[in-house]
Amino acid sequence: MHLIDNLQYANWSEKIFRQMRDGGVDAVHVTIAYHENFRETVANFESWNRWFERYPDLICHARTGDDVRAAKRDDRTAIIFGFQNPSPIEDDIGLVEICYTLGARFMQLSYNNQSLLATGCYEAEDPGITRMGRQVIKEMNRVGLVVDMSHSADRSTLEAIEISERPIAITHANPSFWHPALRNKSDTVLKELAASGGMLGFSLYPHHLKDKTACTLDSFCNMIARTADLMGADRIGLGSDLCQDQPDSVVEWMRVGRWSKEIDYGEGSACDAGFPPMPDWFRDNRDFGNIAAGLLKAGFSEEETAGVMGENWLRFYDAGFSKSETAPG
Amino acid sequence: MHLIDNLQYANWSEKIFRQMRDGGVDAVHVTIAYHENFRETVANFESWNRWFERYPDLICHARTGDDVRAAKRDDRTAIIFGFQNPSPIEDDIGLVEICYTLGARFMQLSYNNQSLLATGCYEAEDPGITRMGRQVIKEMNRVGLVVDMSHSADRSTLEAIEISERPIAITHANPSFWHPALRNKSDTVLKELAASGGMLGFSLYPHHLKDKTACTLDSFCNMIARTADLMGADRIGLGSDLCQDQPDSVVEWMRVGRWSKEIDYGEGSACDAGFPPMPDWFRDNRDFGNIAAGLLKAGFSEEETAGVMGENWLRFYDAGFSKSETAPG
Repeated sequence: MHLIDNLQYANWSEKIFRQMRDGGVDAVHVTIAYHENFRETVANFESWNRWFERYPDLICHARTGDDVRAAKRDDRTAIIFGFQNPSPIEDDIGLVEICYTLGARFMQLSYNNQSLLATGCYEAEDPGITRMGRQVIKEMNRVGLVVDMSHSADRSTLEAIEISERPIAITHANPSFWHPALRNKSDTVLKELAASGGMLGFSLYPHHLKDKTACTLDSFCNMIARTADLMGADRIGLGSDLCQDQPDSVVEWMRVGRWSKEIDYGEGSACDAGFPPMPDWFRDNRDFGNIAAGLLKAGFSEEETAGVMGENWLRFYDAGFSKSETAPG
Repeated sequence: MHLIDNLQYANWSEKIFRQMRDGGVDAVHVTIAYHENFRETVANFESWNRWFERYPDLICHARTGDDVRAAKRDDRTAIIFGFQNPSPIEDDIGLVEICYTLGARFMQLSYNNQSLLATGCYEAEDPGITRMGRQVIKEMNRVGLVVDMSHSADRSTLEAIEISERPIAITHANPSFWHPALRNKSDTVLKELAASGGMLGFSLYPHHLKDKTACTLDSFCNMIARTADLMGADRIGLGSDLCQDQPDSVVEWMRVGRWSKEIDYGEGSACDAGFPPMPDWFRDNRDFGNIAAGLLKAGFSEEETAGVMGENWLRFYDAGFSKSETAPG
């Protein structure tokens, strides 16, 4: 079985890379851009190149599902890059392929706000996928950069599912039937996502959990079972949104970037502005075993559990990260 | 036999790509930066991505010697990217690997002028490789980006040969014993280059030729034979410097970029400011057969001729473009 967490944004360090190994985590999709422009994102690729050079025994860069398999054989954690916003491509569609070549494999079309491509889930109005958005989805499909709609609004998400010729992902969110956060997703979105071959990654960010930090493992795993009934047990995985060791200044960067002079608290509030504490059954990369045990207890078979814990994402990588067949090699 | 031209900077078009195919050219190292900064160079990578998408039957992107072999099997011309200046990496050593990942395989440490790394061949003084230059050579060695000293001054070139742990190249220049242009190279440089496993590519840019446009094929091929005596027939190849269909404004960009408000004529002069006409036996990519015939006439064996026409560069690519063994995959 491959253990894959399809979304983390930690304050990276040797300590965390060692925890990934201790937890047997075979691959992590890491965010390398929230509001960064192209050049700033390149600096983040550069930082990762330094991590890979410094810790070759712990981590390696993955561009394909087979790279994840090779990492597991080598006892390393495969790192897959993604953007939570299209800011790295600025207004230049040619940067889609450039970012893909540098290793990006997921890109959200919007992050909470309206972007050049789509609408974010905090906007009052959602006019759907923009003119540039349609062109960029086509280009992302061509090169093998997966459309991620985790922070997008419903209409934009449904249109992205419709427009994209390849399955898309919601890498980190939960169903709103369980906890009606703005970031969580309606049954309609989840059903359409699954019907198109897409994937949902379950978030462990406390604001996305029923009862937040106090959420129980049973509640979380029973929610996964109900989502499997809705989407199929092969269309779901994990996207923990683990933001380990980050200072509160980083949650502020996520929330307001450079777009506002006033603070916006996202799913938090003025008296609860920083990162909330994680539930005690999922503190870091060493706790995935608790979730696997919880899934078995919630009624999943061994095979279904292996799917949710990573095999479903691995199959999705195999299909999603290749260049489309009409594209030249 | 693989036919390789290790330096061109044409005004690219379907016409030229078809001439490459008509001439049986298996690979061309193309310049994608003279004075461009990082972002401008990325725009040039983007332009090439569009050419590859538009003409998949004529050209393809090559990152390795094996990509050149595959291109030949597919009846396409392999395109290898290079920079004539370190301007794309700006003052950021992390951009060496970024540019390598995007496909760069040759980078000149200086272009006529002093750079952050080394001295150009038109400067009055050559203080040798700089502090940053030493670090960048080490990083280029690590990732597999070949040091090119075509436009550099002698001391910097000799120091680069000494410092670099992998063979370097002078992709396009001729020996000064034949024609004493500032851009041509001394016997000392050529001998040290060969002794370290490096390669020289012979230029067909008229200012680098004895008698310029009137240079004869016999004179050119006899010069190659004398250079083979100096360096060995396995350390030489072609780097035509063909600048086909370029307007004179482009030679001005090459010569002064943004670094001077006054025009500098390089090897030309005020009354001979543009691109000089090519010799009549080498007008474009369809004329490499003339050179092969000339080499045989000048006394090279069939095997040596195949080496000069491309096999020597192909072996150099195999050894030079890989990541060093100490580098993590």
